[in-house]
Amino acid sequence: MGKQNIDKLTRTFQIRNLLLRQALAECLGTLILVMFGCGAVAQLVLSRGSHGSFLSVNFAFGLAATLGILVCGQVSGGHLNPAVTFALCLLGRERWRKFLVYFAAQTVGAFLGSAIIFGLYYGALWNHAGELLVEGENATAGIFATYPGSHLTLVNGFFDQMIGTTALIGCILAIVDPYNNPIPQGLEAFTVGFVVLVIGQSMGFNSGYAVNPARDLGPRLFTAIAGWGGEVFTTRQGWFLIPIFAPFLGSSIGVMVYQLMVGYHQEGEVRDRKNKELEERD
Amino acid sequence: MGKQNIDKLTRTFQIRNLLLRQALAECLGTLILVMFGCGAVAQLVLSRGSHGSFLSVNFAFGLAATLGILVCGQVSGGHLNPAVTFALCLLGRERWRKFLVYFAAQTVGAFLGSAIIFGLYYGALWNHAGELLVEGENATAGIFATYPGSHLTLVNGFFDQMIGTTALIGCILAIVDPYNNPIPQGLEAFTVGFVVLVIGQSMGFNSGYAVNPARDLGPRLFTAIAGWGGEVFTTRQGWFLIPIFAPFLGSSIGVMVYQLMVGYHQEGEVRDRKNKELEERD
Amino acid sequence: MGKQNIDKLTRTFQIRNLLLRQALAECLGTLILVMFGCGAVAQLVLSRGSHGSFLSVNFAFGLAATLGILVCGQVSGGHLNPAVTFALCLLGRERWRKFLVYFAAQTVGAFLGSAIIFGLYYGALWNHAGELLVEGENATAGIFATYPGSHLTLVNGFFDQMIGTTALIGCILAIVDPYNNPIPQGLEAFTVGFVVLVIGQSMGFNSGYAVNPARDLGPRLFTAIAGWGGEVFTTRQGWFLIPIFAPFLGSSIGVMVYQLMVGYHQEGEVRDRKNKELEERD
Amino acid sequence: MGKQNIDKLTRTFQIRNLLLRQALAECLGTLILVMFGCGAVAQLVLSRGSHGSFLSVNFAFGLAATLGILVCGQVSGGHLNPAVTFALCLLGRERWRKFLVYFAAQTVGAFLGSAIIFGLYYGALWNHAGELLVEGENATAGIFATYPGSHLTLVNGFFDQMIGTTALIGCILAIVDPYNNPIPQGLEAFTVGFVVLVIGQSMGFNSGYAVNPARDLGPRLFTAIAGWGGEVFTTRQGWFLIPIFAPFLGSSIGVMVYQLMVGYHQEGEVRDRKNKELEERD
Repeated sequence: MGKQNIDKLTRTFQIRNLLLRQALAECLGTLILVMFGCGAVAQLVLSRGSHGSFLSVNFAFGLAATLGILVCGQVSGGHLNPAVTFALCLLGRERWRKFLVYFAAQTVGAFLGSAIIFGLYYGALWNHAGELLVEGENATAGIFATYPGSHLTLVNGFFDQMIGTTALIGCILAIVDPYNNPIPQGLEAFTVGFVVLVIGQSMGFNSGYAVNPARDLGPRLFTAIAGWGGEVFTTRQGWFLIPIFAPFLGSSIGVMVYQLMVGYHQEGEVRDRKNKELEERD
Repeated sequence: MGKQNIDKLTRTFQIRNLLLRQALAECLGTLILVMFGCGAVAQLVLSRGSHGSFLSVNFAFGLAATLGILVCGQVSGGHLNPAVTFALCLLGRERWRKFLVYFAAQTVGAFLGSAIIFGLYYGALWNHAGELLVEGENATAGIFATYPGSHLTLVNGFFDQMIGTTALIGCILAIVDPYNNPIPQGLEAFTVGFVVLVIGQSMGFNSGYAVNPARDLGPRLFTAIAGWGGEVFTTRQGWFLIPIFAPFLGSSIGVMVYQLMVGYHQEGEVRDRKNKELEERD
Repeated sequence: MGKQNIDKLTRTFQIRNLLLRQALAECLGTLILVMFGCGAVAQLVLSRGSHGSFLSVNFAFGLAATLGILVCGQVSGGHLNPAVTFALCLLGRERWRKFLVYFAAQTVGAFLGSAIIFGLYYGALWNHAGELLVEGENATAGIFATYPGSHLTLVNGFFDQMIGTTALIGCILAIVDPYNNPIPQGLEAFTVGFVVLVIGQSMGFNSGYAVNPARDLGPRLFTAIAGWGGEVFTTRQGWFLIPIFAPFLGSSIGVMVYQLMVGYHQEGEVRDRKNKELEERD
Repeated sequence: MGKQNIDKLTRTFQIRNLLLRQALAECLGTLILVMFGCGAVAQLVLSRGSHGSFLSVNFAFGLAATLGILVCGQVSGGHLNPAVTFALCLLGRERWRKFLVYFAAQTVGAFLGSAIIFGLYYGALWNHAGELLVEGENATAGIFATYPGSHLTLVNGFFDQMIGTTALIGCILAIVDPYNNPIPQGLEAFTVGFVVLVIGQSMGFNSGYAVNPARDLGPRLFTAIAGWGGEVFTTRQGWFLIPIFAPFLGSSIGVMVYQLMVGYHQEGEVRDRKNKELEERD
């Protein structure tokens, strides 16, 4: 293709509505997050441990978050997670009307990401148990959405998802805080990947660290349609509601903890310094 | 050696033809990719798991890609993979005549890389089963080229290689997109290594994630000559054709997905802004 | 919330006393260190190895140190460890009166971090053995504080904690030495995380590499209160004193070794160069 | 200590002889390499796999190389390996008289590093087999120096050490080539750590990838003295000579391969461009 043809292509397909463009980017970013992340769970489960471990799943989700953010970050901010969008809206850094659009786009992206993994491992999935099971030793529904460990009560599970999201949001706020500014520009995506990695290594045993309503709901919807059936919603007394609602509470707490312990003081400090400089100039 | 002698040496061996120099660099880069990557598979297989795991193979291929790119990137762009060259030709960033030269150089590099590993582990290879086997529990051909798992149909395998390359190319395009520009200059090679790592952790169970025609064909040719025989081509109904052809289709889809969902809009945005600035100046 | 309301919030909650602000930041940073680090130990122990390994614990502590430093580093320096504060006081880079305040804040942070993990894994902890045990196969006290391996004498344990801290401090001093300056600004936190990771991989077998009085004392206090009882202090002939006192000796030796082998010469070199420039100017 | 006292200390201990200062720095750097690297082997062997894996040893050696270089790199260049010094002398970037001084300093550093690990794991070492063994299932000499696998002939072992060093040197030359310049300044140490990591993952099965005469000789001398006896030199028909001599041949080949395939052409390119600019100016 000549340079001219490509310019023409660019013009043809260019979308000029900013919110639509951002929704598309968020969708692609979350698709990447779920494709690589759930792909690693699939590899672990379907190979019965020979081609993966929980550590490789942790690494994959961390790297997937990094790459998802890199792909869409310049366009949409690279949230990939409604709980992140929620926190930034709470802080007044994003408008609330973005919240629902992003939530929808992220859920669609997560749905598509799990569809790709379903296709990629189609043979291995059917080969695993001969059928698509939600519960039991040969269950494969857990590749896509999260299910609680047998030791977990619903209350403990709610706390688990809440505290995981609090940790995620607290760290992300520090990483992107314009007044704290701890890392070189351009490395934010990598550092957020580290946060996801360490959450998986330390908070992953209870229920698989969704800490992201879209990452859990999208794939769960997909499995309901693709052959696992409605059981993915009804199992364990409606567990599926917890990774949807607990993260928003966790997100709010994360905002509070970070702002009260570090954020407000740094911000005030910067403002005080500016005011002082202004006074001295007069 | 004195400084003068070295200057003389430089002049004697300097090749001034750019394409030849680039081919040499691609050859060395792909040699490094395959030497370290297949070396890690050899270590896993020959030690029967005591000195490696699938995770260490994933890390090795990721790091090998990073180092291969670092060694040759300034000269040839560091593609190491005909599917990457193909994508850049499709986008008009490289000329099509480069494609075949690079493909050949990369295949030769992969051939040489596997030859080095063959020499390094010569004793261990013969010690493993007493002979060089393509199939079965003590097979060693899978150290060099990829072979599908027993659960994999050819159609599923084609989709596996296609989608793996789509993911690879989509991420690489984001990383090197001059209009998206998500990471600090000089970190591209490391980020591409992360992409290779995460693909191995999430898409490696079906057939060992070649996603690179040269990385698969070069070592397969080597094994055919080195003692495994023609079976490496005939086994599993001509599987060897899939890692050669599927990646190019995947590469095309990767270009389309990234450009339609992010690339064209970012590029157009930049052009619109420039045009506006030009108008305002008039 | 409008921008105005947020400005108002900032003003309401802003703490203007620097030392109090720094203590709060150290507390949050150490909370993050212990929450992620001990969380990974909990995941390893409670899943009986299915969701973690010693490697994942090492990675988690390294990443936790990095994130803890990133969150509080701009405010308090990100020590997270009284032995680090001690070393910087010895070198005259921090005032001694900071030492006790930081030590207290770090211990409180570590206490809170382990409380969060206790809540997160409450069900799994009780499910593990039916009771909270300090010793034996089903012990869970080792999730929070460190206990020596059965092969370890107290003298060897003292040396273990001392040498581990020496290594930690020696490397940290190189990383932050203004006259040595080996890494790009902003990457210090990541490099310190690498130091913690490698110490865990090479010096973790004897007693779990506390190398940090606050990281060990805070969680031990928590376990004493939360149900494990006074045994956490009396077991193994008062082991708990060693991770409190040995690190300070190690810290002093680390300062000496680094300064005598590298630091003083680099510093002197810089000073000599400056003096020479001053003379030449005259 | 007041600022003044510290200035005085600096002056007292400052060594002004550059080569001595560099030797001290190399010694400390290699000490760190061996302390962390062999420490990880010790942890793997002595815990019988519960606190380490070959992957953690690979990571530890990689990180240890990075940290060793960071600690001494500004002073001495951070070679940590006589084969690296040798390559830089061959290329005329270091003077030959440095070679023997560095070799000696590096060997002393490696000796001291293994002595520290011996002290740290003193109890665990004696606990392991009741005595210090060079051969057999409970051998502990392999924690410090390298010994070949049972499948390895001396010729194959020589090739193993040679090719490993070739790979190491080829990659290092690319990383530090002033005409190729592939990575941001300050990240060289991290990238060299990646090279060491990937060599361990792909070339570590034959004999434990010494690829460094000092790293092998220093610890072997230490074990001979510390209680393992002369058997560490006589076992396997004088294996100990191979990790001393093969790396230098590998180093020479690494220089040749990199320079002939990439280096000379890049260097010539830069020179040609400069000459052209000079001509145009006239």
